[in-house]
Order: sequence, then structure tokens, then C-alpha cells
Amino acid sequence: MFSAVKRFLIGRPLKSTEVGEQKLSKTKALAILSSDALSSVAYAPEQILIVLITAGAMAFWYSIPIAAGVLVLLTALILSYRQIIHAYPQGGGAYVVSMENLGVNPGLLAGGSLLVDYILTVAVSVSAGTDAITSAIPQLHTHNVLIASILVVLITILNLRGITESASILAYPVYLFVLALFILLGVGVYKILTGDVSSNLHTPLGTPVAGVSLFFLLRAFASGSSALTGVEAISNAIPNFKSPAPKNAAKTLTAMGLLLAILFCGIVFLAYYYGIQPAEKETVVSQIASATFGRNVIYYFIQATTALILVLAANTGYSAFPLLAFNLAADKYIPRMFTIRGDRLGYSNGILTLGLTSILLIVIFKGKTEQLIPLYAVGVFIPFTLSQSGMLVKWIKEKPKGWLGKLIINAVGAIISFTVMMIFFITKFGQVWPVLIFLPVLVIIFHRIRRHYDAVGKQLRIASNKPVPPIEGNVIIIPVAGITHVVENSLNYAKSLSADQIIAVYVSFEREDEKKFEDKWNKWQPGIRLVTLNSYYRSIIQPLTKFIATVEKKANESNYRVTVLIPQFIPKKSWHNILHNQSSLLIRAFLLYRRDVIVTTVPYHLEE
Amino acid sequence: MFSAVKRFLIGRPLKSTEVGEQKLSKTKALAILSSDALSSVAYAPEQILIVLITAGAMAFWYSIPIAAGVLVLLTALILSYRQIIHAYPQGGGAYVVSMENLGVNPGLLAGGSLLVDYILTVAVSVSAGTDAITSAIPQLHTHNVLIASILVVLITILNLRGITESASILAYPVYLFVLALFILLGVGVYKILTGDVSSNLHTPLGTPVAGVSLFFLLRAFASGSSALTGVEAISNAIPNFKSPAPKNAAKTLTAMGLLLAILFCGIVFLAYYYGIQPAEKETVVSQIASATFGRNVIYYFIQATTALILVLAANTGYSAFPLLAFNLAADKYIPRMFTIRGDRLGYSNGILTLGLTSILLIVIFKGKTEQLIPLYAVGVFIPFTLSQSGMLVKWIKEKPKGWLGKLIINAVGAIISFTVMMIFFITKFGQVWPVLIFLPVLVIIFHRIRRHYDAVGKQLRIASNKPVPPIEGNVIIIPVAGITHVVENSLNYAKSLSADQIIAVYVSFEREDEKKFEDKWNKWQPGIRLVTLNSYYRSIIQPLTKFIATVEKKANESNYRVTVLIPQFIPKKSWHNILHNQSSLLIRAFLLYRRDVIVTTVPYHLEE
Repeated sequence: MFSAVKRFLIGRPLKSTEVGEQKLSKTKALAILSSDALSSVAYAPEQILIVLITAGAMAFWYSIPIAAGVLVLLTALILSYRQIIHAYPQGGGAYVVSMENLGVNPGLLAGGSLLVDYILTVAVSVSAGTDAITSAIPQLHTHNVLIASILVVLITILNLRGITESASILAYPVYLFVLALFILLGVGVYKILTGDVSSNLHTPLGTPVAGVSLFFLLRAFASGSSALTGVEAISNAIPNFKSPAPKNAAKTLTAMGLLLAILFCGIVFLAYYYGIQPAEKETVVSQIASATFGRNVIYYFIQATTALILVLAANTGYSAFPLLAFNLAADKYIPRMFTIRGDRLGYSNGILTLGLTSILLIVIFKGKTEQLIPLYAVGVFIPFTLSQSGMLVKWIKEKPKGWLGKLIINAVGAIISFTVMMIFFITKFGQVWPVLIFLPVLVIIFHRIRRHYDAVGKQLRIASNKPVPPIEGNVIIIPVAGITHVVENSLNYAKSLSADQIIAVYVSFEREDEKKFEDKWNKWQPGIRLVTLNSYYRSIIQPLTKFIATVEKKANESNYRVTVLIPQFIPKKSWHNILHNQSSLLIRAFLLYRRDVIVTTVPYHLEE
Repeated sequence: MFSAVKRFLIGRPLKSTEVGEQKLSKTKALAILSSDALSSVAYAPEQILIVLITAGAMAFWYSIPIAAGVLVLLTALILSYRQIIHAYPQGGGAYVVSMENLGVNPGLLAGGSLLVDYILTVAVSVSAGTDAITSAIPQLHTHNVLIASILVVLITILNLRGITESASILAYPVYLFVLALFILLGVGVYKILTGDVSSNLHTPLGTPVAGVSLFFLLRAFASGSSALTGVEAISNAIPNFKSPAPKNAAKTLTAMGLLLAILFCGIVFLAYYYGIQPAEKETVVSQIASATFGRNVIYYFIQATTALILVLAANTGYSAFPLLAFNLAADKYIPRMFTIRGDRLGYSNGILTLGLTSILLIVIFKGKTEQLIPLYAVGVFIPFTLSQSGMLVKWIKEKPKGWLGKLIINAVGAIISFTVMMIFFITKFGQVWPVLIFLPVLVIIFHRIRRHYDAVGKQLRIASNKPVPPIEGNVIIIPVAGITHVVENSLNYAKSLSADQIIAVYVSFEREDEKKFEDKWNKWQPGIRLVTLNSYYRSIIQPLTKFIATVEKKANESNYRVTVLIPQFIPKKSWHNILHNQSSLLIRAFLLYRRDVIVTTVPYHLEE
């Protein structure tokens, strides 16, 4: 039943050899790996204006130099990540770069903050998309959390089906969004050039504004640089590209950078020229579109594709998170299960973990995940800074051909990223302080997991350790609950094993019952020794384990091993299990974890 | 850890021989077994008035004859249940009586409806008590469901601690409530006799009222007879009494009947004489108390004890449900676990089931369990009718001394109970119809469970069946994941068992890996045959079980048995388990349920 549902949802299992067919072409990769970055065009310009308006509408002209600053940062990041892609073609991005060049802790810090960040990306972007949907259909507003959760489930299922399949479906909305914004920018600029738009709507560049401090402009810049979240995704997901993977990834990254630059600057420019003010109830993009086209079909097309891309931004996380988790798991810093390919060859445990944790966040924050945005932005600039610094160290150490140029690029990137990160910490400390607690905690957990895996490996390795002592003989203990075929079956098995000793154990709750059972037993199996234990507290496990411990102690002295044979009847239908006491399961779990005995279950299958 | 918390909550385990100390004296039994019945005094008179007011306040005088009718019904039930107590001193009440005299299905119907009824009692009375609390402290109103659930948890814990302990704690509020109402009735009647209360407040008895039909009066009567729910509880709980149990139970029942009669009639009379109208925001009892005393200390004392007893009415369910469940489980109609005494000698599975299901109801109905009251009332009158009819049949069959008198008592009881039940069905069909669906479903489930237990018993009994065929030899299969101490440990064990054949099985995901592993193995354990299986779909279980099935088929032909030896390392701390793939657990479960092989877990305990 379960497997039928699973097959319906995610499709037939794929053979390991089909892994090549799951690789992405550049167009598809651009679509699913840049949706996060591109979607930020829908809100980042607005974030700048929201800060500027606190100094009055006069200050809006500052959005132009701020956008220029963001552009510089973007250029530095793109150039710098291109270098990372070529230097680390196996993917892993900031995590691998920091780990190799800066050391373990910076690596774990980068990896941990990116993992958390992808979870935040999914939660935040799906919540934002849901808000867009329920703004259009207000009757659904009370079901925000449910709708957002369903969307996450759908995206999760799509990704479990495999990346090529999800890319084929999700590419359309991304390109439609790009098309929609290009139409908007084209028509907008055309109207400005033809003088259709009054040139009196905006303050000229350079107008002096009272109360504008450097701190103020830095805050606006930090807000605007939220447009750059998601830029690193491609560097984490190189193994998903068709070969030559690094080359294709670098080209895709450049294309994404260009698109992002054009769209971001275009929107900032139009907003400035049209003199648009950020409003509570209408987004800046919506105001621009409505000023350019009025509320006609094109306007609604722009709005619809914007809502869609906000939801799909989540998908970037689904491409990058599992690969990053794979890298961390391969290095044994997180559970090994993240290295396993699922039925459809994706790292399904990573996909599922991402889906579940982001639903958890949505539920905990009741769908109001805006509060998480500053955390999310700061979580991006930490790995940005670390990866650029890592590259810096690499160039200095290795000094390859043309290293000075490369070094300068990464140095600029590192300095700007670090600056933005510090601006975030300084200007929004009240919102981002949790990062300072949970990232170190995460790093500590990574270390503890690694230490455990190392300890286990050491203990299991054959050469390193004293050999397991040989077994001199076997004692078999059979807990019996009555005189039945189930017990007979187990006794037959015990006899066939040529053990040195077989002991049947019966736990009675009443003295009378004890005597009666002994008599019956001695008539039925006179050859097998029966031990009866009286349980004053009506527990079977307690007297039984006490007895087993005594036998075990004695057996260990002469290198005998104790096997507990548990007779268990297996009902025909699984719902029947609730009708039978599961003492055997309890006994088994208890014995395995507490004592050094071997536990054998001898099944007796019922036919009715 | 778990056992420390458990011991703190419910106390140290008791020895089976201490069961006598857990018996109830008459005063304690009266308190905990009659709280349900007595608490209905707080709302049943109001229920009558709520029906009567639809014909106008003039109709209120009908409450007196209706109360007389309820009194007749109460008398019949008390007399009749006294007879049941003496005839069936082992308890079980309506279930046992109907089962023995009317047959299996009527018995199951009575048992099933009582089980459901006790769950409803708990849900309804705790919700009502919570309403009383949050009416007093409106800030808590939004947390109704949580408060009600916490109250149920507290009552459950008290009952898990043992009945005597819960009786000692819960007896005070019950007796305080009785005291409070006696003060109210005494002062009320005194004021009427001294003429302190105007005699013009009520319509005289016999005043003709337009629109009063027989149907109308029957509805009012049915509403009033909700005062009788809980009357049967004592007959289900006889084994909880100190000996002589039946005699003590009968006396307690009579005392309860008398208290109930006095309080019920007193409240109805005062309400009538004071001309009190049922109001949305104030209960009838509150109005009477406030008219008698004004809002002074005594008034608040009455209100507080009333709220308390509404919550404690739940406790009656906790005394009766586990014993009824024990009877049904002993007859194999519900899972056997209900026959097991817990640490404190109560039937803890029954207590826990009652607690959990009633919390479930409270959560599902969001604390608004009033909607369940009609279901609850009809659920009581079904077993009332069945038990009386059962006694009728018994007297006719057995004809003991004085049987005619006994027969008349039960006949009157049966006829009235049946009538009330039919009135419920006719006047409130829209609310009680679900009973007609879920009771038959419940009876069918009871039958299926019984059939399963019978089938299992037949298959396990030694005499009845063909003997288990002897075992000619053993084949041992060991799934191995690598060359480690864990595997070495399992191999040593396998060798010590003198099996006829030992096969190690390795599942590889890649062809290369397969070859490499074979070479390593042959160097390490040249004596043990290794089979490597390639898994195209990265599943370990699938190729493994397929291989085991083949071996099993061949082994069965010559009466060999197949044992699958699973090497398992046990980490030192249990949280470590999440870091390791639990394939061995999956393999074990899959093999035991699907195939006829023996599954042995060979633990290797890690020391770090």
C-alpha cells in the first residue's frame, strides 16, 4: 500500500546507472537555481525605499547610488564565485572553500549557516508567495499556514521526483517572470524616452537632504543587498550540471548575474523616475506596473508571475541543500543518511529534511516569516565572507598564473561581504542576535557527531583492536508463557542448535500458578530444565532480566555466550498485533541495549 | 529516567498481595462512585425548566409531577440495581446481566454503550467544570481545551495512583457539595415555612396551560431523567468494595439513591416555589442560592463546590470503566491488555484509555461537549433497559424465593427505562442517530476480536493440532556491511552453533565495489562462503530478502531451518542511534512478518 502511494507520488525507482539522465542543461539550471536570486528583485528595491522614506521622499534619489553599490557587490560576488566554481568543481561552495583554506571551524560555520539559510529561504519565500495568493483571494486568508504547508509539500514531492523533472515544470514560471519584467522595463524606459512620463515626479540626483547620515545610507544599502541572497546556490550545485559541469555552471552564473543586474537596476531606476513611494497595501513593482500599463492584462500577468516566482524561490533551496548536506555528511559532520540517494537518485533525505523543517518554521511562526528575513540575510553574508576569504588564502598559498588579478577580485568581494555583514549586525542587532547563539551551537553539534563517528570507526576496525575472543559454548534461555505450539517450535529449534544448556523460564504472578505450571511442564518436556520466577509486581521483564543477568555473568566467566530465544507468534494480519501483548518486543529491546546477550526471535506464523 | 518520572507521578509499585489494601470503604465508595449521579442535580432540574419554558412560565408547575416521575424511575432503578448487585457480586452490571440472560449481542450492546458512555461522561463533565472555572476567570476562556485536558490528565494520574488514594482526595469535595446543597435546601425550606418567601412567585399546581401536549411533557421528563446517569456505576464496580462487597455496594447504592432523591426534588421544589426562570448566563442553582442567601460567602461556597463536583463526576467513569473493560477483555471481546493490573494494582490500561479518548473528544469538539449530552443520556438508558430485561428473564427462568416481587420491580424498571429511551429517540432523533450506527459497529468489532482470539487459541493448543515437524539442520545467513569487529563477532557466534551451512551476504551498489569486497573477504575469512548481490536500485532489503527467500525454499524441502544472523553494533548512548542507518531493524521486521525464517540479533556493544 505504502509503496503504491510512494510510486504514484514520486514515480518508479531509477537504476543507479541512470544518474547521468538526471543532469541539468544550462537553461534548466538557470531556471531552478536562480529563482531565489531573481525573485529578490520583487522586494529588494522596495526594501531600500522603505529605509529611505524615513528621511522623507526627498531622499529617494539615494536609491540610485545605493543600487550602484549593490551592483558593485554583485559583480564582485559573481566574479568571485566563478573562480570558486572552477577551483572546486565538485560543488560544496562556501563550505568546501572555507574548510580547505581557512580550517574546520570556519568551514562548519559556512556550512551550518548555509544549511539554516536554505531552510529559511523555503519558509520565507513560500510564506511570501502564499501572502500574494491570499491577498488576491481574501477568503483563503485564514488558511495561510495550511496553504503554505501544502505548497511546501508539493515542491518537496516535485523534487523527490528528481531534479530534471522539477526543472522542466518549474522553468516556465521563471522565464515568464523574466519576460514580464523585461516587458515592464522596456515599455517603462520607452515611455520615459518619448516623454510620456513627467520628469517632475522625482528629486534630481544630488539634492541635499537633511538627516541623511552614513549609518542611514549603510542601512539602506544592507536592505538592498538582500537582492543578493541565492547568488551562491549555483556553486553548491555544480554536480547537478551536465558535463563539462564547471564550465556550464560558470556560464549559468554569469547569465544569472546579468539578468539580476538588469532587472534590479531597472526596477530601482523606474521606481525613482516615477517617484514611487513604498505603500502598505501595494508593492513597488505593482505600482510601477500599474503606472506603466494601467490595470490591464499585462499588469495582471506581471503580478501573477511575481507571485509564482516568490513561491518558486524555495526551489533553489531544494537544489542546493541536499548537495551541501551530502558534503557535510560525507565529512561525517551530520548523519550519514544524507549521503544516500533515494529512489529517484536525488538525495531524498536532504529534500525531506528541508521540507519538514521549513513546514515546522511556517507552523511555529504561523506563516508570518517576515520576522526571519534579517536572520536569513545575515546567514548569507557569513558564508559569502568566509568563501571569499578562503579563496584569498588559496591564491596567496598557491600563487597560480594570474593569481594577483584573482586575489584582487576575491579581496574586494571579501571586504564588501564582510562590511555588509557587519552593517547587518550593527544596524539590526535586535533581530539578528540569535545567529550568534545558534550557529556556534550548530558547530558544536557537528563536532560531536564527527567525534562519535570517529570513535565508532576506531572500535569497529579489525586491525586496530584486540580480536573478539572465541566462543567456548552456548547457553540458550527460552522465556515461555504457556504450553503451546509456539513454545514447541522454539524448543525444537533450540534442540537443533546443539547448545550446551537449554533453560526454559516461566514468570508467574501467583504462587499457585507456579506449581501447576511446573507439573504440566515436567509431563510435557521432562528433558528441558524449567526455571519458574515469581513476579510480585506483575512485571515480566524485571525478574526475567535479573535471571538472565545471573546466567550471563556465570557464562562470561568461561567464555560461554547466552542466547535468549523468544518464541513469537506472528498473526496473519498486522492489525491483529494490537490484540496481543507485545512483551516480546519489549524484552528484546531491553535485552539488546542493556545486556550482552544474543536475542533470537523464533516466529510461528499463524494461518488464520 | 522514564521510570523515575513514572514513580514520582504514580508512586512506588505495589505487590500483588497488597490488592486488599486498595479496597474501598462505604463512605469513600459513595464519594467516588456517586459523584457522577449527584453532580447531575446541578443541571437536571434546569433541563426540565428549559423544555417547559417553551410553553411559557405558566407551565413551570409541571416540573413537580415530572420530578415525581423521575423519582419513580429512580426508585425502580435503585431497587432493581440492588437486585443485580446481589445476583452478580463479581460486578460488570448491565454487561454481565444482559450477556447471561439475554444472549451475546444484547450483552455486547450493553457493554459497548456503557464503555462509550463513560468516555462521554469524562469529556462532558470535565468540559462543564472547565466552563464553570473560566466563567469565574474570563481571562482563561481562550484556554478552555487546554485546561480541560490538564484536568483529565490530573484525574488520570490520581486514578493511576490507585483508587483508595484518589478516593481519599476526592471524597472531600463530594461531601462538601452535599453539605452545601443541604444547607441551601434547609435554609430555603425554612424561609418558605416562616413566610420569608412570597407565595405569589409561582403558578399553583394544576393551572391549565395552553399548548402542553403529552409529547411535550415526555420531552421534559426525558431531559429530567438525565439526573439518573451514573446510577449504574456502583453495580460495575463491586469488586472495588471491601468485603462483604455486595452487601456494602447495595448499602452504598441505597444511600446514593436517597441523597439523589432528596437533592433533586429539593432543587426542583425550590426552583418552582421561587418561580425561577432558566437564564442564559446564570444557572438555576445559582439563582436559588442567590435568592436564598444573597451573594455572600455561603453563595460562593455553593458555587465552588458545584464547579468541583462537575469535574469530579468524571471520576465515576474512572472507577467503572476499567472494571467493565476488564470484564469485556476477560471474555476476549476487547484486547487482553485491559485485564492487566498496573504498578498500583488498578487496571491501568483502562484508566489510560479512558483518559486519552476523552481528551481526544475534548480536542475534537474544542471543549464544546454539550452537543454530546443527548448521546450520553441515550447511551445510559440502553444498558438500563437491557439489564432490567435481563433480570426479568432470570427471575422467570430461575424462580427463586419471592421471585414475583423481584420480577415486578425489574419489570417496572425495564418498562420505564425502555420508555425513556424511546422518548429520547423520538424527541431528539436528530441528535442521537449516531448511536444507531456506532453501537452496531462496536458490536461487530467485539465479535471480530473474539473470533481472532478463538482462532489463535485453536492454532496454539498443543493437543488439537498436528505436531511441529522436527528440524533436520540449520542454514545461517549473515548480511555483512563491511569487514569489522561487529561482523567478526557474528561470525564467531555462527561458527559456535555448528550449523550445516554459513553464508555471508554482501549487498553492493556498484559492480567495482563488489569485486573489491570479494577479494578482501577471501583474504580475511576464506572458510566462509560469501554471496555478493548487486542492487541496481540502492535498496538493501530487496535483494537480500529475495536471496533469503530462495535459500528458504530450498531449505524447507529438506526440513532445514534458515536463521538470519544480524550483526548490530549498539552505541553507548541512545541518541547515537539517529546517526546510524537502522537497516538492521527494517530487515528484522520485514523478515519476521513476511518470511518463515528465524531472526537473530548479535549485538556488539560499543564502549565509547
